[in-house]
Amino acid sequence: MFTTIKRLLIGRPLRSNELEGQKLTKLKALAILSSDALSSVAYGPEQVLIVLATVGTLAFWYSIPITVGILILLAALILSYRQVIYSYPQGGGAYLVSKENLGVTPGLLAGGSLLVDYILTVAVSVSAGTDAITSAFQSLHPYSVQIAVFLVLIITILNLRGLTESANVLAYPVYLFVFALIVIIVVGLFKTVTGQVPQNLHPHIGTPVAGISLFLLLKAFSSGCSALTGVEAISNAIPNFRDPAPRNAARTLAMMGIILASLLAGISFLAYWLGIAPKETETVVSQMAHRTLGNGVLYYFVQATTALILVLAANTGFSAFPQLAFNLARDKFMPRMFTIRGDRLGYSNGIIFLGVASMILIIAFQGNTERLIPLYAVGVFIPFTLAQCGMIVKWVTQRPRGWAGKMSVNFVGAIITFSVLAILFITKFTQVWPVLIFLPIVMFIFRKVNRHYEAVGEQLRIKGVFQEEIHSNVIIVPVAGITTVVERTINYAKSLSDQVIAVYVAFDHEDEKRMEEKWKEWDCGVRLVTLHSSYRSIVQPLAKFLEIIQRKAKENKYQVMVLIPQFIPKKRWQNILHNQSALLIRMRLLWEKDVVVATMPYHFKK
Amino acid sequence: MFTTIKRLLIGRPLRSNELEGQKLTKLKALAILSSDALSSVAYGPEQVLIVLATVGTLAFWYSIPITVGILILLAALILSYRQVIYSYPQGGGAYLVSKENLGVTPGLLAGGSLLVDYILTVAVSVSAGTDAITSAFQSLHPYSVQIAVFLVLIITILNLRGLTESANVLAYPVYLFVFALIVIIVVGLFKTVTGQVPQNLHPHIGTPVAGISLFLLLKAFSSGCSALTGVEAISNAIPNFRDPAPRNAARTLAMMGIILASLLAGISFLAYWLGIAPKETETVVSQMAHRTLGNGVLYYFVQATTALILVLAANTGFSAFPQLAFNLARDKFMPRMFTIRGDRLGYSNGIIFLGVASMILIIAFQGNTERLIPLYAVGVFIPFTLAQCGMIVKWVTQRPRGWAGKMSVNFVGAIITFSVLAILFITKFTQVWPVLIFLPIVMFIFRKVNRHYEAVGEQLRIKGVFQEEIHSNVIIVPVAGITTVVERTINYAKSLSDQVIAVYVAFDHEDEKRMEEKWKEWDCGVRLVTLHSSYRSIVQPLAKFLEIIQRKAKENKYQVMVLIPQFIPKKRWQNILHNQSALLIRMRLLWEKDVVVATMPYHFKK
Repeated sequence: MFTTIKRLLIGRPLRSNELEGQKLTKLKALAILSSDALSSVAYGPEQVLIVLATVGTLAFWYSIPITVGILILLAALILSYRQVIYSYPQGGGAYLVSKENLGVTPGLLAGGSLLVDYILTVAVSVSAGTDAITSAFQSLHPYSVQIAVFLVLIITILNLRGLTESANVLAYPVYLFVFALIVIIVVGLFKTVTGQVPQNLHPHIGTPVAGISLFLLLKAFSSGCSALTGVEAISNAIPNFRDPAPRNAARTLAMMGIILASLLAGISFLAYWLGIAPKETETVVSQMAHRTLGNGVLYYFVQATTALILVLAANTGFSAFPQLAFNLARDKFMPRMFTIRGDRLGYSNGIIFLGVASMILIIAFQGNTERLIPLYAVGVFIPFTLAQCGMIVKWVTQRPRGWAGKMSVNFVGAIITFSVLAILFITKFTQVWPVLIFLPIVMFIFRKVNRHYEAVGEQLRIKGVFQEEIHSNVIIVPVAGITTVVERTINYAKSLSDQVIAVYVAFDHEDEKRMEEKWKEWDCGVRLVTLHSSYRSIVQPLAKFLEIIQRKAKENKYQVMVLIPQFIPKKRWQNILHNQSALLIRMRLLWEKDVVVATMPYHFKK
Repeated sequence: MFTTIKRLLIGRPLRSNELEGQKLTKLKALAILSSDALSSVAYGPEQVLIVLATVGTLAFWYSIPITVGILILLAALILSYRQVIYSYPQGGGAYLVSKENLGVTPGLLAGGSLLVDYILTVAVSVSAGTDAITSAFQSLHPYSVQIAVFLVLIITILNLRGLTESANVLAYPVYLFVFALIVIIVVGLFKTVTGQVPQNLHPHIGTPVAGISLFLLLKAFSSGCSALTGVEAISNAIPNFRDPAPRNAARTLAMMGIILASLLAGISFLAYWLGIAPKETETVVSQMAHRTLGNGVLYYFVQATTALILVLAANTGFSAFPQLAFNLARDKFMPRMFTIRGDRLGYSNGIIFLGVASMILIIAFQGNTERLIPLYAVGVFIPFTLAQCGMIVKWVTQRPRGWAGKMSVNFVGAIITFSVLAILFITKFTQVWPVLIFLPIVMFIFRKVNRHYEAVGEQLRIKGVFQEEIHSNVIIVPVAGITTVVERTINYAKSLSDQVIAVYVAFDHEDEKRMEEKWKEWDCGVRLVTLHSSYRSIVQPLAKFLEIIQRKAKENKYQVMVLIPQFIPKKRWQNILHNQSALLIRMRLLWEKDVVVATMPYHFKK
């Protein structure tokens, strides 16, 4: 039944050689991998205005130079990540760049922050999308946590179905959102140019503002930088592209940069020109849509696509997280299960892990995930900075043709991203300090996992000639009575070895005597040892008995096997009707003792 | 860690021969096994008045003849259960009596209703006790479900600790409650006799009442009969008594009958004499306590002991249910696990099952379990009636000395209990119809379980000479690479049989070729078969391969064993870092195929 449900939700399993068919065209990749970055246009410019509003509406003109700053930062990021893509076409982005050029620890720092970041992205963006939905349908408000969890569930299932299928579903809303914003901007600019908008709505650029400070401007700038999260996603997910993957990825990145820059510039300028102030009850984009498009169908179209893209921004995390986890797992810093492709060729374990983790976050914060936004800006700018530094080291040490130019691009990038990181820590320390706790924890886990795998590898390696000799075999058969199952098992044991011992655990003396007499009468040619159990446990006396046998066996170079007769009922529910002693014995012995544990099944026919 | 917590809550395990020390003296047994019956005094008389109040306060005098009726019923029950105890000293009460004399189906009907009944008892009485607590501390009211569940948990743990220990804790409240009620009754009677209570508070007996009907009187009577639930508990739990168990049990039953009758008579008479009418906000016992004891410490003492004994009434169920379940399980109508004594010599599985089932009921009904009360009266009177009928059959067929007298006791008992049952069905059908659904379900499960055990027994029985011959052994070793673990396993397999085949599942051709070359180079003397997996599953191709091998093996009378190399990490958490393929392979093969599955453990040292 479980299988049927799984098939229905996820689809038929795909053969390994169908992998190429699951890969993305540029157009679909743009939709899937840019939704995070593009959606941030819906709140990035607003964040800037919110900080400026603390001084007064006169300060709003500062949003123009701040936006210019953000656009420069964006350009630097796009240019330098372009170089990352060509240099590391296997994906892995900041993690790989930092690890190869700066060392393992910086690499893990970059990888760890990105992993945590994607979890935050999913939680934050789905919560934001849910807020948009419940604002429209107030009656749904009490269920916002349930709705958010349900949405994460749907996105998880879509991703388990595979990349191309989710791309088909998800591409439309992304392009509709871009289209909607372009309509607003074009209509707004047209009205501005044709003089339909009064000139006195906005303060002139350069107007002196009382109470403005550098700290405040930096804070506004760093808030606006939240619009740049998601830019790195493409560099982590290059293997999902059709061949030639690096070129396609680089072009998609460029396309995304252009669209993102245009939307950012347009929205920020228009908001300034129309003199829009952030409100508690209505978003900046919604106000702009009202002013430019009025109150009709077009307005609701904008709102609907905005809600949709906020939810879909989560999907970027679902593409990038499993690929990054795969890279970390392949390098033995995360459990091996993250390297396994599921039925639909996605890294199912990564997808499921991300889904569950973000649901837990949503439930823990009861959907109020706004507090997490600064955290996730930091989580992105750490790997941004590390990736730039890694690239600089790469150019300096390898010195390919034109390395100086390439290096200067990354150098500028490094300085800018590091500055943003510093600004974030300085202006928002009260909100971002938790990274200083959980990043070390994540790094500790990476190291711990790595040490275990290294130790295992060492112990598994075959060294020289094999020493151990086995002279003979002892087979122990625990019996609970004289039955057909026991009969078959004893018979089999005798065919394997001539040293078979049956063991019976008795709960009292009467029981012991009865069994010994019955065994004698049966006369199967195998010796019976009866053990005593004062505490009604079968495993305990058996384990003690085995200790003695094993000591002797070691002296004589015998290998000990415990062969457990087990009947298997016809229907699964019938298992509850039988003591699971066989299972208990098996677990205990395998875990504690150095004996081979075998099960001889006897399938009931009715 | 689990073990430590278990020890702390439940205590050290007891040896089987410490069983006698766990048995009950009469005084402790009275406390443990009568709390259900005695506690019903707190609400039984009130139930009668509530029904009469629908006609008017004038009708309250009918409570006297109704109480007389209930006392006659009580006497009949006590006398006949005395005979049950002597005839069936092994416990099992109504179940055993009905099964032996009336047949299996009536026996299961009696046993099934009692089992369901004990679950209801626990849920209802703990909820009632919780209500008493939250009435006193209003601020706790929103948490009543949590409190009730917590109380069930405590009682469950006490019972897992063992009978004598819970008796020590529970005996005081029961005797305090009895003492408190006796104080009320004595003080009340004293005031009545000394003329401190006005004569005009109550209607004279025989006052004509308009609107009274036989139906209503029967309904009042059947409501009052809820005070008799719990009377049968002692007959189910005879093995818990010290030797001579039957005599001690019979005396305890008599003591309980006398106490119960005195309290019932006293409370009912005093309530009538003081003219107390049932109120929504205050119980009848509470009103009586107010009138007789005033508003001081004594009043609160009565209330506290009442709350306590309502909770403890649940404990009767915890003594009787596991014993009854044991009897049903020994007769193969319930899963065998109910026959196993736990660490503290109680039937832990029965205790835990009862605890969990009643918690589920409490949560499902959100603590409003009053609706279940009529259900559980029916659940008691079905086995009452069946037990009486069974005893009649026994006397008639066996005819021991003085059988006629004994039979007449049970005959009267049978007629009375059957009448009460009929009255319950007639007057409260809308509340008790669910028994007609769930009793057949329970009986169906009993039968189904029994059929399975019978079939298993048949298949396990050894018949004549053993036919199967094993000419030789084939051992299949699934390998995932060439490691020390594989080396050891192959070496061991070779010591068992000269027909060893290693199997490797390859995910692509490259992989296949590489492994084959490495294997050739290693040269361990065992043939390698590589299988292909298009869907990245190891189990699937292995199962297919085994089908072929098994077909050949059957022809040649070979037995097949799959020997799985498995490394076992030093710490349990490290298991998550390794694919659990060994486990998956084992489960699948054991369940579906007729092969022996063995695990060769390799314990990592670091």
